[in-house]
Amino acid sequence: MICVLSGGTGTPKLIQGLKEVVDLKDLSIIVNTVENNYFSGVYVSGDIDVVLYTLKDMIDEEFWYGIKGDTYITSEYLEKMGTPEKIRIGDRDRATMIQKTLMLEEGYSLSEIVDIQRKYLGIESKVIPMSDVDSDIVIETDIGQLDFHEFLIEKQCKPTVKDVVYSDVPPAPELIETIEKSEMVIIGPSNPITSIMPIVSIGGVREALRDKYVVAVSPIVGTEPVSGPAGKFMNALGYDVSAIGVAEMYKDFVDKLIIDNEDKELSSKIKDIVGDVGVTNTMMKSLDIKKDLANFILKSRND
Amino acid sequence: MICVLSGGTGTPKLIQGLKEVVDLKDLSIIVNTVENNYFSGVYVSGDIDVVLYTLKDMIDEEFWYGIKGDTYITSEYLEKMGTPEKIRIGDRDRATMIQKTLMLEEGYSLSEIVDIQRKYLGIESKVIPMSDVDSDIVIETDIGQLDFHEFLIEKQCKPTVKDVVYSDVPPAPELIETIEKSEMVIIGPSNPITSIMPIVSIGGVREALRDKYVVAVSPIVGTEPVSGPAGKFMNALGYDVSAIGVAEMYKDFVDKLIIDNEDKELSSKIKDIVGDVGVTNTMMKSLDIKKDLANFILKSRND
Repeated sequence: MICVLSGGTGTPKLIQGLKEVVDLKDLSIIVNTVENNYFSGVYVSGDIDVVLYTLKDMIDEEFWYGIKGDTYITSEYLEKMGTPEKIRIGDRDRATMIQKTLMLEEGYSLSEIVDIQRKYLGIESKVIPMSDVDSDIVIETDIGQLDFHEFLIEKQCKPTVKDVVYSDVPPAPELIETIEKSEMVIIGPSNPITSIMPIVSIGGVREALRDKYVVAVSPIVGTEPVSGPAGKFMNALGYDVSAIGVAEMYKDFVDKLIIDNEDKELSSKIKDIVGDVGVTNTMMKSLDIKKDLANFILKSRND
Repeated sequence: MICVLSGGTGTPKLIQGLKEVVDLKDLSIIVNTVENNYFSGVYVSGDIDVVLYTLKDMIDEEFWYGIKGDTYITSEYLEKMGTPEKIRIGDRDRATMIQKTLMLEEGYSLSEIVDIQRKYLGIESKVIPMSDVDSDIVIETDIGQLDFHEFLIEKQCKPTVKDVVYSDVPPAPELIETIEKSEMVIIGPSNPITSIMPIVSIGGVREALRDKYVVAVSPIVGTEPVSGPAGKFMNALGYDVSAIGVAEMYKDFVDKLIIDNEDKELSSKIKDIVGDVGVTNTMMKSLDIKKDLANFILKSRND
């Protein structure tokens, strides 16, 4: 059993590669749920749906969001009526969200619902939300505590960040057990601050990871901040916006960090920090590169 | 100004006729909102939407529900996933409902929202929900109090009905004033128990109607119960399931009852009960018949 920790964009690309080289029954994906919320009346768990659609080969790869070929009739009509959706939702995608909303109302837990949905889709891999309890990111800044969207949208990431705090939520029922049963844990190249650390900060996860062979793929290549304000967050928390910063952030639970060819010169420094390093092409621009990266990760343990 | 009390099916057909013969600016429609509720995550005010779509010539006349030519992509996908919607909602229709849901969340009242929507649609007539506060129908039966859906669906209308009780909700802000300002009030051929009496039972409405010239169209022709359990309710409340029963129910606020040619022999009896009677074709199977009925109603006052 191989376990993958995933956010919503970088890691799903890696999952496309893993699908080609691993039996899907032997794959469990643990997915970030921080900032899940209601939009347009429905419960939106963005990262989970991206993972489900990726596993089913139905993800819209143009936006890395929603269903390939989906229509936007409801959303377009709402916009025409002067109420554009905060998140543009496709018609089929909305059905997936309505199903979650209705089942939550009926008392099902998010992990039960996701398991029902992945079975309906015929997905053999397990997909496990990090928690059945909703959680937030709170940003402590020089102008006080802000919630994630206030900081991002209203304040346009301008305040100086002092700390990033995740809600204290319990792990989903199978979460810790799934990590414990895995031969190997892969931390995909998702945003460390908004996708990976919310999972790692859940009670018991960091400890479970320490006991396992964990390979992470750096989401940062060169010194380009990953999407959004992650660079600002990393700086604020005292980390370099580079693979070095990722290594520092992950060092107490990661055994090997895989970095891009472009960052080759950082490899010895990273080896010093986490113990082991792999250098390869991590820019997943084709299925072949995704497959190669997946194979490169899988053979890590035997190196 | 002419004011119409409307439910969701019979009266909208009459509105189609009125549209042809009255300046739309001179028409105000007061609409039943009892049993408005959330379905599939969105606020559904069925009768209001039917009235809006009818005024805009976009009603789906096959079902007298939803938008003509609408698609059902989300609904069909939900059904395919094993979660059929309790109410099948079209994709454009869903947008209308999402807009209401979002604006209710933002703190707008239902009547404000409906006014914004009718203006967006370019509808010149006012459309006024009977109340901004949600209300229910409670059925008192031999097996105890049941809510409307329990009685209708779970108990399949089997228990003996003792009484029908409407929630005590305040009128929408413009409701009483609209009636008071009207030269004439038309009570359309909607279900008396589930559409008309919920409006009439709102505080101040019955009194306002008594001061006005009110013409009602009987929704019952012959002794056929109108759709649903209305016949059972009418019987339980001591009324005949006939135009006579309608006359008895409406007598203290209606000046004239219009009945179908088929019920011609009831006309003198009905005249005794309500004071005046009109006999014409009320089976609105074509636009011409709708127009004729509208004209017949409008000239009532001068007869």
